[in-house]
Amino acid sequence: MLEEMGKAAKRASYHLAVLSSAQKNQALALIADYLEQDSESILQANQMDVQQARENGLSKAMLDRLQLTQSRLEGIANDVRQVCNLTDPVGKVIDGSVLDSGLNLERRRVPLGVVGVIYEARPNVTVDTAALCLKTGNAVILRGGKETHRTNQATVKVIQRALEKAGLPADAVQAIESPDRALVTELLKLDRYVDMLIPRGGAGLHKLCREQSTIPVITGGIGVCHIYVDQGMDVEQALKIIVNAKTQRPSTCNTVETLLVNAQDATQFLPQLSQRMHEVGVSLHACPRALPLLSQGPAPVTPVQESELDDEWLSLDLNVVVVEGLDGAIEHIREHGTQHSDAILTRNMHHADRFVREVDSSAVYVNASTRFTDGGQFGLGAEVAVSTQKLHARGPMGLEALTTYKWIGYGDDLVRR
Amino acid sequence: MLEEMGKAAKRASYHLAVLSSAQKNQALALIADYLEQDSESILQANQMDVQQARENGLSKAMLDRLQLTQSRLEGIANDVRQVCNLTDPVGKVIDGSVLDSGLNLERRRVPLGVVGVIYEARPNVTVDTAALCLKTGNAVILRGGKETHRTNQATVKVIQRALEKAGLPADAVQAIESPDRALVTELLKLDRYVDMLIPRGGAGLHKLCREQSTIPVITGGIGVCHIYVDQGMDVEQALKIIVNAKTQRPSTCNTVETLLVNAQDATQFLPQLSQRMHEVGVSLHACPRALPLLSQGPAPVTPVQESELDDEWLSLDLNVVVVEGLDGAIEHIREHGTQHSDAILTRNMHHADRFVREVDSSAVYVNASTRFTDGGQFGLGAEVAVSTQKLHARGPMGLEALTTYKWIGYGDDLVRR
Repeated sequence: MLEEMGKAAKRASYHLAVLSSAQKNQALALIADYLEQDSESILQANQMDVQQARENGLSKAMLDRLQLTQSRLEGIANDVRQVCNLTDPVGKVIDGSVLDSGLNLERRRVPLGVVGVIYEARPNVTVDTAALCLKTGNAVILRGGKETHRTNQATVKVIQRALEKAGLPADAVQAIESPDRALVTELLKLDRYVDMLIPRGGAGLHKLCREQSTIPVITGGIGVCHIYVDQGMDVEQALKIIVNAKTQRPSTCNTVETLLVNAQDATQFLPQLSQRMHEVGVSLHACPRALPLLSQGPAPVTPVQESELDDEWLSLDLNVVVVEGLDGAIEHIREHGTQHSDAILTRNMHHADRFVREVDSSAVYVNASTRFTDGGQFGLGAEVAVSTQKLHARGPMGLEALTTYKWIGYGDDLVRR
Repeated sequence: MLEEMGKAAKRASYHLAVLSSAQKNQALALIADYLEQDSESILQANQMDVQQARENGLSKAMLDRLQLTQSRLEGIANDVRQVCNLTDPVGKVIDGSVLDSGLNLERRRVPLGVVGVIYEARPNVTVDTAALCLKTGNAVILRGGKETHRTNQATVKVIQRALEKAGLPADAVQAIESPDRALVTELLKLDRYVDMLIPRGGAGLHKLCREQSTIPVITGGIGVCHIYVDQGMDVEQALKIIVNAKTQRPSTCNTVETLLVNAQDATQFLPQLSQRMHEVGVSLHACPRALPLLSQGPAPVTPVQESELDDEWLSLDLNVVVVEGLDGAIEHIREHGTQHSDAILTRNMHHADRFVREVDSSAVYVNASTRFTDGGQFGLGAEVAVSTQKLHARGPMGLEALTTYKWIGYGDDLVRR
């Protein structure tokens, strides 16, 4: 069955690849309209998913992410309309020249072809991903979490009706309907038809894809992010940035998980940190050197376990480690970081420069919060995923990451000498 | 053992990442000098490899590729000096701006880190690959074919001595010395240290890497290339290009393997094709429609097997298939191509445009030979590999393909709102 889906997606992708931006935008606008007009079928399916999830004892937070309402659906439709406004990267000439041989060569952006997306519970990802893939002329095969499979199925049916109305192949957007997990493994081997795989979920899903997939995968999304407070940093400004990076939205991957404090300032800085963290409800996990200094402050503190330095908290918890200056900070980040987002807070330009050059992360910051790592914040218009690997795309991925290029050579009946 | 190599390579990569272009070029110049000065140790090791290969009954062509001489070694050293002249992509700012939030954001090219290269018999690849990786600030772990393992070992020793002389870590270039095949599988799982894997070899090696590797892989190199002769094409010019694409160097991946001839002109075109192919020593493999027309000509012809349309000949053999115009040609290429290089020979601008847009290959040509797909011909200065996948790099890969980028954000004590 997956073989058939792959074949159909590939066929659809040939059709999509030659559409103009106007044609693609027209289809997107229709999808947005249909999502609003046909909301009933989607909301009904969603109610069944929510009911089932409640019976299965899903957490309240998960249930909330799962649930759709008319106004949420309108929000999703409006997001699709936003995608129309983005610049279409397809067709752009990256570079070109007439070579010594006489060959007139250019490199032009083209769609990838077929994109596979595996994601977890949130139903808005279905629409979001489909819209971004269509905008860039790609067909997409979606595999959502089993908790939302009725919602996804209903949503994709609406999208397909809009596609047909727009004169495009319905197979441009397909969803794997069965919640059977074996189909994920099968999808990972569909390299004959699928050009790129994007897992959107936890570390386990990324690991599965990296290990099992024969399709090129974009992995990422795991962020053990660090902030290093350098010697002589302004304490008030440092605390402001730390509070933002830890508490603005603790469940996101760009949230700071470990604070590195240079040894020179630790005695003075850590008590003030404890005070502020107490005020914003953050619990601390301290290294042996930080522990006695933090124990006197009001914020709850426990000794940090080595393994906790390698994991995301995704909660109001913060590791605190005292390091020997910049070298110690860089060393720590190399050992424990996930190459997502790391920041230095400093007044020393030489240190800022070294940090930026020597810390090998997707995003490095000087005197700014790690929370900025985000497609919207970076002005990419949309975020397909956040990559923490180094090939193809790194950090927040915009529309360009859904394209590749082809070399086009024109000759006047030209042969190679 | 591989774990230790990986760790050492990663450490070396941190050192390499912050070198200036001048420092890297100095090291490359020293490597070139040392290869010439210490040629004896390399040539001796090579003699033993050649001797062994002869005993193992390797073909004459293979032996020739294996063998080094003083002058070949000088050629290799000069190739390293050429790499000094290439522009270093590292440090280049791709784009940047001050965002609404006040964040001063730029995207800068940085080395990948550690590159793994698995290749077959040719000893020049050892030096070539090491030079390109060093130039881009990457450490490299090399795994050459077992036929050249003594040569490679001696060569890497010389390179390491030059690195040390230049004040760089010797671990920047390491070779897996044991010919044990299990080490390849182990290398494929070293994702903790190796950032990108480049297989340089046959289809089997690429398949192994795609299936087994947990490291992002660049696969490619397999070229079932097509030339489509459109209706009304000038016969003499068409034959000139076909001869070049088939006979200039038949063993390369950009050689044409299948000629598609539009049905309208087949009766007139095919006898002339047979005549010319006969003159240049090419054997033909014809589809049922082409067979009777070619059977009257002087070139040897047999019926083509379906499976032969999906494989490289890499010899003076050419498939000939009659197709129903441009649509038939595009259909055939989609079914049998490997997305390497495909050409249309035409006088019809509309057809040229459709071919370029609808054929989804790394390189598409209008009235030019498929032989142009090559880093040197494309003006890239060097060729790391030819990718036929769509992620990261497509077609001939130059130095830029050995880099990634990082996002660098400067703030004036900036938090996200």
